[in-house]
Amino acid sequence: MGENQLSNTQLYIGIDGGGSKCRATIYNQALKPLGTGVAGRANPLHGLEQTFQSIQQSTELALKDAGLPIETCNELVAGLGLAGVNVGHFYQQIAQWQHPFKAMYLTTDLHTACIGAHNGEDGAVIITGTGSCGYSHVGEHSISLGGHGFALGDKGSGAWLGLKAAEHVLLSLDGFASSTSLTDKLLSHFNVDNAMGIVDNLAGKSSSIYAQLARYVLASANEGDAVAIAIVTEGAEYISALARKLFEINPSRFSMIGGLAEPLLPWLDEDVASKVSPSLSPPEFGACLYAQKQFNAAIAG
Amino acid sequence: MGENQLSNTQLYIGIDGGGSKCRATIYNQALKPLGTGVAGRANPLHGLEQTFQSIQQSTELALKDAGLPIETCNELVAGLGLAGVNVGHFYQQIAQWQHPFKAMYLTTDLHTACIGAHNGEDGAVIITGTGSCGYSHVGEHSISLGGHGFALGDKGSGAWLGLKAAEHVLLSLDGFASSTSLTDKLLSHFNVDNAMGIVDNLAGKSSSIYAQLARYVLASANEGDAVAIAIVTEGAEYISALARKLFEINPSRFSMIGGLAEPLLPWLDEDVASKVSPSLSPPEFGACLYAQKQFNAAIAG
Repeated sequence: MGENQLSNTQLYIGIDGGGSKCRATIYNQALKPLGTGVAGRANPLHGLEQTFQSIQQSTELALKDAGLPIETCNELVAGLGLAGVNVGHFYQQIAQWQHPFKAMYLTTDLHTACIGAHNGEDGAVIITGTGSCGYSHVGEHSISLGGHGFALGDKGSGAWLGLKAAEHVLLSLDGFASSTSLTDKLLSHFNVDNAMGIVDNLAGKSSSIYAQLARYVLASANEGDAVAIAIVTEGAEYISALARKLFEINPSRFSMIGGLAEPLLPWLDEDVASKVSPSLSPPEFGACLYAQKQFNAAIAG
Repeated sequence: MGENQLSNTQLYIGIDGGGSKCRATIYNQALKPLGTGVAGRANPLHGLEQTFQSIQQSTELALKDAGLPIETCNELVAGLGLAGVNVGHFYQQIAQWQHPFKAMYLTTDLHTACIGAHNGEDGAVIITGTGSCGYSHVGEHSISLGGHGFALGDKGSGAWLGLKAAEHVLLSLDGFASSTSLTDKLLSHFNVDNAMGIVDNLAGKSSSIYAQLARYVLASANEGDAVAIAIVTEGAEYISALARKLFEINPSRFSMIGGLAEPLLPWLDEDVASKVSPSLSPPEFGACLYAQKQFNAAIAG
């Protein structure tokens, strides 16, 4: 078989790893999806071993779903979009991994999400899921903003909404802040009856545990609770400001991705909300497009 | 030897374990200190193994400092004041430890700090070190407030001041918040030149790393920086409110303990600041008094 023929049957795997889960999809040369696997979180910030495990597990599940033998793994050209690899030392540690693929191309989950959202064309995206961040790509220019991680940043994200709610509820239970309907919702979520019960369930926990509280904040805000409205408004103001920064290089399209994208939409400023276009393809397809481009360049190179 | 004679030569060890370090002091029956040892942090929130290691290491160093053989360990009656054991499951895990002492009595670092500060008498304390919390004890009444831990609560603590500073500096570097002299201080502290450099050094780090930034916030506030002043003022307002809650049961004495106690004093409301009395003895002496009282009660049983 010549090299062209090999390339014509090349299989790809696009992997999107974040703070809550890792999703992998296998594509054939024509970029038709063959199978998908979902595993646990894959954010190096929460541990390298877990990240590698989640990548491998989602890959194996995708191979199985595609009806391919597990040995096919070392024939796959992999595109990896991972949260956390905007932090330099995490990028290096993942890039140095003795990966099981034919080739692996690594970039941020933000970059692959943007490629996917606009089917490989230029554009901008904001991800508001467990975390929050923004990315804009036009020609040679790109802007990457936010994504500083749980507790340090990620305003407007699920984990941030949950953290703000928990903070306020604890202050309120101690008598230092105004009362809110969030108190009952959080106490009943954890099935406890006091502040220490909440702390017991949250102390030292990861961002995904906090993100589970976001739906209560949105529900309370939609019911008119002043504390919840203040939290959601502060988060949405940041997301609107983030979008305006991304618009500075005039991206032709803009999408919002992640579990909070839809519920936050009514809270965004009108000039931002009116610019939101649907995401065209999922982040793992973006990861596949990224890998294909890099791989073809390497072969041509 | 009768039991009384045994009791007359009983040795005690008072151990104060927190988010930054673990300090142990050995006392004789007359409560004269014989030797002290300091080891790394002992907060179960950061890991049980490390907590047990720090307790053992500080104990061994204290025995060495006291000129006692290491085997003396199993003759010591230990008082343990530990951060984090206000969280139920951590209390249980530490209490079930196969400890190396003759007897071990466990309570919160807040409780032993209060006993120490007022030499065993009733009173109130606020600890503002890596974390923040308050405790008041009068007769049968006690109040325990705050201490919800890094990121969730602990307003006015060193880690909270550091986190607020880092959050603001990152927003400012991304163009979402007003500029502040804290930016240069944090960039130079970490020897980096941009936001991701700061994130690289802080992502996933423990409260003690954030607490190291507190001195910059206090310095900037004292130099008139508006952002730093707003952060320190918000923290100090919480500490003042915390003190007023503790005063509700009319403690006869009130002390502030921890690395932030002194620098925060000028920022507290006058009605609170005027009530601060010096701490009479260190927390590890409080832990020793606690252990002695429990041990004598058990013997009298």
